[in-house]
Amino acid sequence: MAETGTRVQADVLKDFCRRVFEKMGVAPDDAAITADVLVQADLRGIDSHGVARLGRYVNGLRDGIIVARPEEKVVTETPTTVTLDAGAGLGQPVGYRAMKKAMEKARQYGCGFAAVRNSNHYGIAGYYAMMALEQDMIGFSTTNADVLVVPTFGRDAMYGTNPLALAVPAGQERPFVLDMATSTVPRGKLEVYHRLEKPIPLGWATDERGIPTTDPGRVLDNFAKRAGGGLLPLGGAGEEFSGYKGYGLGLLVEILSAVVPGAAYLTSVYPKSPEGKPLPANLGHFFGAWRLDAFRPVEEFKADMDDLIRRLKGGRLAEGATRIYIHGEKEFEEAERRSQAGIPLGAKVVANLQQIAAELGLPSPL
Amino acid sequence: MAETGTRVQADVLKDFCRRVFEKMGVAPDDAAITADVLVQADLRGIDSHGVARLGRYVNGLRDGIIVARPEEKVVTETPTTVTLDAGAGLGQPVGYRAMKKAMEKARQYGCGFAAVRNSNHYGIAGYYAMMALEQDMIGFSTTNADVLVVPTFGRDAMYGTNPLALAVPAGQERPFVLDMATSTVPRGKLEVYHRLEKPIPLGWATDERGIPTTDPGRVLDNFAKRAGGGLLPLGGAGEEFSGYKGYGLGLLVEILSAVVPGAAYLTSVYPKSPEGKPLPANLGHFFGAWRLDAFRPVEEFKADMDDLIRRLKGGRLAEGATRIYIHGEKEFEEAERRSQAGIPLGAKVVANLQQIAAELGLPSPL
Repeated sequence: MAETGTRVQADVLKDFCRRVFEKMGVAPDDAAITADVLVQADLRGIDSHGVARLGRYVNGLRDGIIVARPEEKVVTETPTTVTLDAGAGLGQPVGYRAMKKAMEKARQYGCGFAAVRNSNHYGIAGYYAMMALEQDMIGFSTTNADVLVVPTFGRDAMYGTNPLALAVPAGQERPFVLDMATSTVPRGKLEVYHRLEKPIPLGWATDERGIPTTDPGRVLDNFAKRAGGGLLPLGGAGEEFSGYKGYGLGLLVEILSAVVPGAAYLTSVYPKSPEGKPLPANLGHFFGAWRLDAFRPVEEFKADMDDLIRRLKGGRLAEGATRIYIHGEKEFEEAERRSQAGIPLGAKVVANLQQIAAELGLPSPL
Repeated sequence: MAETGTRVQADVLKDFCRRVFEKMGVAPDDAAITADVLVQADLRGIDSHGVARLGRYVNGLRDGIIVARPEEKVVTETPTTVTLDAGAGLGQPVGYRAMKKAMEKARQYGCGFAAVRNSNHYGIAGYYAMMALEQDMIGFSTTNADVLVVPTFGRDAMYGTNPLALAVPAGQERPFVLDMATSTVPRGKLEVYHRLEKPIPLGWATDERGIPTTDPGRVLDNFAKRAGGGLLPLGGAGEEFSGYKGYGLGLLVEILSAVVPGAAYLTSVYPKSPEGKPLPANLGHFFGAWRLDAFRPVEEFKADMDDLIRRLKGGRLAEGATRIYIHGEKEFEEAERRSQAGIPLGAKVVANLQQIAAELGLPSPL
């Protein structure tokens, strides 16, 4: 987290992002949704998925890899399921609408699911899962992603950090919001260690031979050269710490997000033309919602969630530990702080936003 | 896996289990289902969940902790969801019926889910998920379990090894069957190392202070004395290898399996009376099914699954590795071997089955 440097209020940042997307030809509603997803990531302290990424979306829109005004289509629909073709548009607006559809179906039938093909990076998975909370539903979302993770016993990265998110309402307590990549760590963590010239723990990534390495620079270099190796699944290399479970979870996400809707999977994600030009990513997402009262009365459910959360937080601490967390708790606290104090932006991000503003002839938010 | 000792044909073992359950007062249909779930575990090489466990079910039935002829009730029902009260009966028959209900709902509406409260140990999660395969559906199942796992930064075990299973049909290739505990390893693995007097890797379990330990005997001893410590979530202790993700997956399973249907959760599982007598476990399970053709044509889906599986299996190997596996593959191969050669049983299991046979006046299968 960038705790020093410039701080900007969320609304200012959101308004700027909205204008940027509109300037790039994105429809006003879609621009507003995408801006909201990005700035929510920043508010929650997930800086890697916030405005730091704005330039990549702008470039994608400029290159036509991301279609500004896509033709979104329903491919298949049943009372409780729908498959959408995003028309190579931004992942956020179609993600928002797909989750809304899943929730409408859940409202009517008890549960609902939406799968999306032909899409792009959709930001934080937790955003969509959390949409269910205000309607007393459990929300679920997964997406596949750029190829960075090696299967157990494999040498080459063959699938992405493939996150899954589950959001569950509570009563007095904050909701449970699990939002996790299925790799041990994201690529960004290697970049941080590389900048600090620190070795990474054995079990985060492998070198070009497929052997765990402590050298983050070597891994990043191999990514650039497509030389082999990559991030390890949750649980690390081989079987000693059950890395095949993390690999299995990565495939669970790959199947739900990509095979179910008919998107690109494995190494076909982020394809290039014969001349090396990037082609549309054809990423896929998966969304789900279950109404709480389709299983038991909402108040009973929430009282039990409160009790579960309190018992966990009140558990005895391991020696040297200071606190037991519930998933999402750190992010809710960070969002409260940043809503007040503003969102801290590092120098590199500030420069990037200023450059985007200048290029598009927009007033800089900074 | 017990590769030496007696081998028994699956049908012989299944028939014996069925008779044992009937003798304990279980209805014939329920006895047959439970026997099938147990022997399927043995066939698939998951010996810890097969007939090695028969004595525990018999004891539970004898003590009345497990009700032989339970009154099963529908608590809540919507077009796509149902909550069942198992009446403290065996987990397998209610699990089988719950999964059937989920599939019926999926057949009609696209997807279906069933949650179960007031149940008992239901065997392997994968059994129920795999029921969906023959109907061209994706199957899902979770259950909570005896308290053995410590939350990240916690000192005491507060929830179970909480498995989740997802089964996905393929075309020519074998299905993808992920069936994994959300702890790094099961308790049984510590018992094996303890017998062999081998240290366990740091990251499997913690001692009574909540610190990772290499001493399996100490962990097992602490379980018996409820002195603290326990199994670590997938990803290990603390944050270095993202153990909080495994902890989050454990809670995902705890919420779906127990809070959703209204079963016991966290340390209230396997309660005891003031005199120390075990009380009904009130375990919970969760089952789901999605019809493939609710999202896209079945043949397209299966062709992509085949391609995904082949590409993974055909990936370049890490140095020193011999094969990239797909989840479920080892178990399908083992089931083929054991269907032919019989199920290998260790001396202790053989003695246990012979004792059960003698006690119930049944001919021993061995």
